[in-house]
Amino acid sequence: MAITTEYEVTGMSCGHCENAVHEEVSEIPGVTGIEVSADTGKLVISSQDELDDNVVVSAVEEAGYNVLGH
Amino acid sequence: MAITTEYEVTGMSCGHCENAVHEEVSEIPGVTGIEVSADTGKLVISSQDELDDNVVVSAVEEAGYNVLGH
Repeated sequence: MAITTEYEVTGMSCGHCENAVHEEVSEIPGVTGIEVSADTGKLVISSQDELDDNVVVSAVEEAGYNVLGH
Repeated sequence: MAITTEYEVTGMSCGHCENAVHEEVSEIPGVTGIEVSADTGKLVISSQDELDDNVVVSAVEEAGYNVLGH
C-alpha cells in the first residue's frame, strides 16, 4: 500500500531550492513520489512503506534546508 | 586594462540563483571576474575589454533572470 507523508520545509525560496530537496529525497529507498513547493514549504512524499522521519530530515538538511520541528 | 561593468538583475532569491547567473556569465568570452548577489541584485563583471550588453543580458536570461531596464 502506498503511504503519503507530509513535511514542512523552511528556507526554500525558488525552483532551484525545490530541485535540491527533490534530488536528495529521491535518493531515499522506497520513495515512489515527491511533491515539493517553495511557495508553501510543503514536501509530500509517497512511499511503499512508512518512512523513517530521521532519514527524511537528513535528506532535507543535506540539501541545505530544515524540516519544521526537527 | 580591466573593465568593470555593473548590472542590476531581478528575480534572484538564493545562492542557487547566484550560481545559475554566475555559470552563464562565466561562459562569456573575455570575462575575468564575476560578483553576483541575490540580496542586492547586483551583478559586477570584470572583463579584458568592454562587454556587449546584449550578450550579458542574454546570459542572464538564459539563467532564468532579467537585467533591469532590458
